[in-house]
Amino acid sequence: MKIRPLGDRVVIKKIEAEETTKSGIVLPGTAKEKPQEAEVVAVGPGGIVDGKEVKIGVKVGERVLFSKYAGNEVKIDGTEYTILRQDDILGIIE
Amino acid sequence: MKIRPLGDRVVIKKIEAEETTKSGIVLPGTAKEKPQEAEVVAVGPGGIVDGKEVKIGVKVGERVLFSKYAGNEVKIDGTEYTILRQDDILGIIE
Amino acid sequence: MKIRPLGDRVVIKKIEAEETTKSGIVLPGTAKEKPQEAEVVAVGPGGIVDGKEVKIGVKVGERVLFSKYAGNEVKIDGTEYTILRQDDILGIIE
Amino acid sequence: MKIRPLGDRVVIKKIEAEETTKSGIVLPGTAKEKPQEAEVVAVGPGGIVDGKEVKIGVKVGERVLFSKYAGNEVKIDGTEYTILRQDDILGIIE
Amino acid sequence: MKIRPLGDRVVIKKIEAEETTKSGIVLPGTAKEKPQEAEVVAVGPGGIVDGKEVKIGVKVGERVLFSKYAGNEVKIDGTEYTILRQDDILGIIE
Amino acid sequence: MKIRPLGDRVVIKKIEAEETTKSGIVLPGTAKEKPQEAEVVAVGPGGIVDGKEVKIGVKVGERVLFSKYAGNEVKIDGTEYTILRQDDILGIIE
Amino acid sequence: MKIRPLGDRVVIKKIEAEETTKSGIVLPGTAKEKPQEAEVVAVGPGGIVDGKEVKIGVKVGERVLFSKYAGNEVKIDGTEYTILRQDDILGIIE
Repeated sequence: MKIRPLGDRVVIKKIEAEETTKSGIVLPGTAKEKPQEAEVVAVGPGGIVDGKEVKIGVKVGERVLFSKYAGNEVKIDGTEYTILRQDDILGIIE
Repeated sequence: MKIRPLGDRVVIKKIEAEETTKSGIVLPGTAKEKPQEAEVVAVGPGGIVDGKEVKIGVKVGERVLFSKYAGNEVKIDGTEYTILRQDDILGIIE
Repeated sequence: MKIRPLGDRVVIKKIEAEETTKSGIVLPGTAKEKPQEAEVVAVGPGGIVDGKEVKIGVKVGERVLFSKYAGNEVKIDGTEYTILRQDDILGIIE
Repeated sequence: MKIRPLGDRVVIKKIEAEETTKSGIVLPGTAKEKPQEAEVVAVGPGGIVDGKEVKIGVKVGERVLFSKYAGNEVKIDGTEYTILRQDDILGIIE
Repeated sequence: MKIRPLGDRVVIKKIEAEETTKSGIVLPGTAKEKPQEAEVVAVGPGGIVDGKEVKIGVKVGERVLFSKYAGNEVKIDGTEYTILRQDDILGIIE
Repeated sequence: MKIRPLGDRVVIKKIEAEETTKSGIVLPGTAKEKPQEAEVVAVGPGGIVDGKEVKIGVKVGERVLFSKYAGNEVKIDGTEYTILRQDDILGIIE
Repeated sequence: MKIRPLGDRVVIKKIEAEETTKSGIVLPGTAKEKPQEAEVVAVGPGGIVDGKEVKIGVKVGERVLFSKYAGNEVKIDGTEYTILRQDDILGIIE
């Protein structure tokens, strides 16, 4: 089973569990929103989204930082994914 | 009796009851908004909606994930449907 | 006496009383906003509304579903009507 | 003394006192915003208002329904008027 | 000393003190925002304001009605003025 | 050390201390936001800001009125400055 | 490991610890949001962001003032960074 996201949405899979993020990226304990690391597993086609042209700038397989509270979580065939808008992705990890 | 949605609205029918979603898609118990699985039963014509061009990207018969709290519920001839905007559909399940 | 709505506004007449909607369309008891059935009695001319082009997609005589809390109620010559924006109409019942 | 409204503003004079509206238009006792009947006494020139083109669709002398809580009230030479935006006018009474 | 307003701003001088407005324009004691009478003393150049074209429709010397709580008050050489956006001017008194 | 503001931002230096504004411009004790006097020390280049064309209408050395609570304060080499958007400048004092 | 920001996002590294900002830029103790000094370490490509053209006006290596509460903090290989939108950068320090 697979999800094909619409518009500017992206499906990602978190790389670390929420409590064990410290290996590569450490999220300091502040009041700010904490980003999380994930892998892109599917991207929407972009195009006109809410009347505005959106170009998809991430690719399947890339590792990204995203805002932890963004998007919707779903579990498919036992794996958890997050569906969010591309704009909730902060950057690509290289 | 049938509903013909206007503009960017889509009529969907939930596939699982709210408490028995675990067969295919499992919704983990977090504070995030939980998406639900549904089948598309009617789509609006798209066109200019709120002054912006909207293209309909889902088709009747497709299975979709949608935001559980989105849209309006109606029961027609004994069956419950949800009418929502296409933008509340997160992705197509393949 | 008649009301000629302006812009994207539509005048509708509810088909069922608020407590007896169960014959055709049943509104389940959830926390969601409940739509209601109504007949269109007058439509605005559309055109530029709030700086955006609006095309009127409903016709006088059609039966529609609308969001129960949308619009303004008026009683003219003993009959209650609701004046709302076309965007508050969810779909046309066929 | 006269008021010449700017942009999309319209000056209207209420036809009935707030407590005696029942002769023609009756406003049922709901939680919804109640519209009121009024006569148009002056209209703005329209044109570019807040960066958007506005066409004035009401004329001096027409009777209109407007949202009771919209606009600003002024008394000029002993008569009360309301100055509101054309968009707060729901329809023209014919 | 003089103020030259920017963009769509207008400098006005109130004609009556706040408690003695009853001579020409009387403001009834309702919950609505009460407009006030003033004389225009300076107008901005208009042009592109917040990305939208604004045409200035009031002239120095005209008497206007404005929303009492709009704008910023300043006292220059002993005289109080209000600087507001043209859109907070309801109409011109003739 | 100098600050070069971006986009539509302007760097200003307050002319009077917050408690001693009474010499030229007196700010009456009302609930309204009180503007303050300042000198422009640096201006951004304007151009496309948030997708809209912005033209800078103030020059270094001009005295301006600005909204007291607007912008961010910084101290550079012992002198306090405020960085704000041009739109928070009410007018130029001549 | 490196972060390549998307769209109008910029990666910066704070120059001073939060409590020791007094050497060059002093942030007075007011209720206003306090800007902070940082060095730009990576910039997004700009382009169409949220339907609007964005030009990136800062360069890697420049020192900037940014709004302290803006953006998301991440720690990469032991160093803390902030990812924010270019619009949260107040100015460039020269």
